[in-house]
Amino acid sequence: MNKINLSQKFSLFNDFWSPKIVGELNDSHIKIAKLKGEFDWHHHENEDELFFVVKGQLLIKFRDTEVSLEEGELIVIPKGVDHLPIATDEVHVILIEPKGTLNTGNVITEKTKQALETI
Amino acid sequence: MNKINLSQKFSLFNDFWSPKIVGELNDSHIKIAKLKGEFDWHHHENEDELFFVVKGQLLIKFRDTEVSLEEGELIVIPKGVDHLPIATDEVHVILIEPKGTLNTGNVITEKTKQALETI
Repeated sequence: MNKINLSQKFSLFNDFWSPKIVGELNDSHIKIAKLKGEFDWHHHENEDELFFVVKGQLLIKFRDTEVSLEEGELIVIPKGVDHLPIATDEVHVILIEPKGTLNTGNVITEKTKQALETI
Repeated sequence: MNKINLSQKFSLFNDFWSPKIVGELNDSHIKIAKLKGEFDWHHHENEDELFFVVKGQLLIKFRDTEVSLEEGELIVIPKGVDHLPIATDEVHVILIEPKGTLNTGNVITEKTKQALETI
């Protein structure tokens, strides 16, 4: 019965936009990621996606609005909704989404990660 | 597209062992709770349950071991595993578990909450 210490897990990697799996929860994976810069517009056809900011400030653009997430704030991006995460400075997030969810959703870009590492 | 600010949500209630729903994620609810004292031994027959400690220190006893969670630490209690949360001092947690999960799992006690408030 192992607990997960986020600070320890975040100390294990430094690459941006490359989510790592830290746990399983029913049919979902718990992932953490470091973000910096602008991602790519995408949506997830069948999966809601949770972003929880544990460090920094994350801007998420939608087609018709945008939301700025501070530390201690979370958002659920509903399935089918186009979004673009932007991290002006380094941001640390927890992501929870169904197993098999592709980071770039409906598009394949140079930021697509097909196989995620478990740490 | 609304974000969830945990501090603001935790300011809305003061009752212990009474999870509040703050969001939905696929087939799960995102809940928050304030804990103080000892809960009741129970397990969840079909649901893994995530505990994420955002304030305080939470001891979770299992039949053969125990785990102490500090702020910034999380644990997934697998389905079927007996557990007993104990909060010596006040603890604030995020819980993520399938919709319909009963707080006392396989037992009905005076701490059982049949209908949860959404805040």
